[in-house]
Amino acid sequence: MADGAVMDADQDPGGAVSLARDLIRCPSVTPDDGCAISALAGVLEGIGFSVTLLPFGEGAARTPNLFARLGTGQPHVCFAGHTDVVPVGNAAQWSHDPFGGEIHDGILFGRGACDMKGGIAAFVAAVRLYLGKVGTPQGSISLLITGDEEGPATNGTVRVLEWMAEHGQIPGFCLVGEPTNPAGMGEMIKIGRRGSLNARIVVPGTQGHVAYPHRADNPVHRLLALLGELTVAPLDGGSDWFDASSLQVTSLDVGNTATNVIPAQAETRLNIRFNDLHTGADLAGWIRTVVARHAPRARVDISVSGESFLTEPGAPVEALRASVRAVTGQVPRLDTGGGTSDARFIARYCDVAEFGLVGASMHKTDEHVTVADLRQLTAIYTGFLEKVMH
Amino acid sequence: MADGAVMDADQDPGGAVSLARDLIRCPSVTPDDGCAISALAGVLEGIGFSVTLLPFGEGAARTPNLFARLGTGQPHVCFAGHTDVVPVGNAAQWSHDPFGGEIHDGILFGRGACDMKGGIAAFVAAVRLYLGKVGTPQGSISLLITGDEEGPATNGTVRVLEWMAEHGQIPGFCLVGEPTNPAGMGEMIKIGRRGSLNARIVVPGTQGHVAYPHRADNPVHRLLALLGELTVAPLDGGSDWFDASSLQVTSLDVGNTATNVIPAQAETRLNIRFNDLHTGADLAGWIRTVVARHAPRARVDISVSGESFLTEPGAPVEALRASVRAVTGQVPRLDTGGGTSDARFIARYCDVAEFGLVGASMHKTDEHVTVADLRQLTAIYTGFLEKVMH
Ligand SMILES: [Zn+2]
Ligand SMILES: [Zn+2]
Repeated sequence: MADGAVMDADQDPGGAVSLARDLIRCPSVTPDDGCAISALAGVLEGIGFSVTLLPFGEGAARTPNLFARLGTGQPHVCFAGHTDVVPVGNAAQWSHDPFGGEIHDGILFGRGACDMKGGIAAFVAAVRLYLGKVGTPQGSISLLITGDEEGPATNGTVRVLEWMAEHGQIPGFCLVGEPTNPAGMGEMIKIGRRGSLNARIVVPGTQGHVAYPHRADNPVHRLLALLGELTVAPLDGGSDWFDASSLQVTSLDVGNTATNVIPAQAETRLNIRFNDLHTGADLAGWIRTVVARHAPRARVDISVSGESFLTEPGAPVEALRASVRAVTGQVPRLDTGGGTSDARFIARYCDVAEFGLVGASMHKTDEHVTVADLRQLTAIYTGFLEKVMH
Repeated sequence: MADGAVMDADQDPGGAVSLARDLIRCPSVTPDDGCAISALAGVLEGIGFSVTLLPFGEGAARTPNLFARLGTGQPHVCFAGHTDVVPVGNAAQWSHDPFGGEIHDGILFGRGACDMKGGIAAFVAAVRLYLGKVGTPQGSISLLITGDEEGPATNGTVRVLEWMAEHGQIPGFCLVGEPTNPAGMGEMIKIGRRGSLNARIVVPGTQGHVAYPHRADNPVHRLLALLGELTVAPLDGGSDWFDASSLQVTSLDVGNTATNVIPAQAETRLNIRFNDLHTGADLAGWIRTVVARHAPRARVDISVSGESFLTEPGAPVEALRASVRAVTGQVPRLDTGGGTSDARFIARYCDVAEFGLVGASMHKTDEHVTVADLRQLTAIYTGFLEKVMH
């Protein structure tokens, strides 16, 4: 179909393609909203949702968010996502305007096409189709949408969840629309994520001449000893639902160019992606113990940006899996790998799973989604609502 | 005694103090001569030496050197040293003019006082005293003096030795006048030095996200593995005349500040001070083998700035030791520790040992030597000449 052609309902069931294009045309690079949240609010109100705009933060950190709910009954199923997008990079390398929402040969191009304006549009379309079938839903459907997932994420999902908890709006289950499929629709549902810990270790020593090492205290050798112990064995062999945890040393820094001088200080940075056999606190304690053994005077800074979490497969995940299978013919893998997402925050409040579009082009030049995939995702979300809303 | 007072022969036997002051007053910071070599040449000609000025190198690298010989017979004993000095650093922190040659309370201050204008002056004084006793020596005495020991040392002792070899001037034994005594006269004769090897190892990897380590190749972990193997055990436990060899990792450099990125490259620098159980080539081969096992794509640059050498104690070393004992009452330790000196070049041609002043203040602010130590060293060198020249 050619760019600009108006799609009729047969070509665009529920209006997913049309809404995805509208959202892509809002240049909502974090932290800018670019009209995305307000446009979505209007659409949701048109369907019958009660929409609450929830901007959090002050000044440059001010983040647009919304919570919208249709109905008040149980079960309460929530869809979570973000309208903000990462920068386009070098716009000249794009084949099409990254904020144009152009369609060529059945492919919709634009920043956010798969991550994750297309996912939001598919869910809104699914709600329309579901309501068209059942009239008024038995339970209630909500959306938690943030404009700060790709940025610091401090005034986004975390703050909206706090607001939802205060106002009795925590759902029974939350579906996050991140692009979970590596290459083709139906491949993967994420039911958890690994945790992430960053550590910076600064080892002081005593400078000296290499010919007199007994008069110096080489901080590099202390650093090598402690990193040797931290990396000598795998952290674990994986668990029921998780791959093995992984520790990666990302930097070593001394900066000494004098070949005959033992330096005064050495430092390192490392990251651990850990599964449900560990907690951030346990790993931090282990790191501090190992460091203290080899370098008692070292300074250790540790931050845990997320604990691991897991939603054990149950009724909602099985409903999602059955709908994916019905639409795509594939049984999706239940996975916990990859990076982090806002699902780590939601998991503190309720069960959560993630399923969306194909993520192969996310954060890249010429990000795109096929119209066929948008239609499939709309159908999957519709089938999911039919199975869980009763 | 007060500054500026003229010493009589009783106070300054052989004129060691007077010559040391004259040399200190030549500001011969490498690569400048500052009149030191020419002043010394004049003194030696006055005693009867045949002096050959041997400037080597062109332009800024031009280095003054001299070779002087008295007599042509055997035994031929040579004294080696340097007139160049390291910079004064912050001259304002000196208590006395670093190029003033001032004496206060029996202490001669100045850059080069102990390293090693004082040593040269003591040897020249010893030759005067020896000739005063014996008239004409049976064998011959020579001096190998360079103006480039503290600098790159490429146009100094190495080139003079080549010239000496071409002209049949290689001695049977060479005494280097470096300040070998740590704290007091008579403590230490050096009969060898450890070798020194520098290595730089650059390990390439494949950049990637820490959440997907299997898609990356972390060069830091390869570097840690190879350094772990290189440092896991001591190189040796020392040998008859040497301390244990020592490997010091002096730098680690990655420079990656992105906590979620596995870097593309990691590098390290290390130095080995090695004894006579190793050669530079053996150690270089060992390093390359270990690196290849853990990081086949790594680049390894190795330079050996000196092999270890040892002059097994024999007649000349025993003569030196006996003279030290007669003058100081101490039996000096025969040592091979510490940094490198030009003795490493001389050792390729003949036996060599090192004995000079107390080095505690060398290369520091307020470098100095006591008049008493200069007199002791003059007496020691005189006794040495009496014992070996027959
Ligand atoms: Zn996303
Ligand atoms: Zn010296």
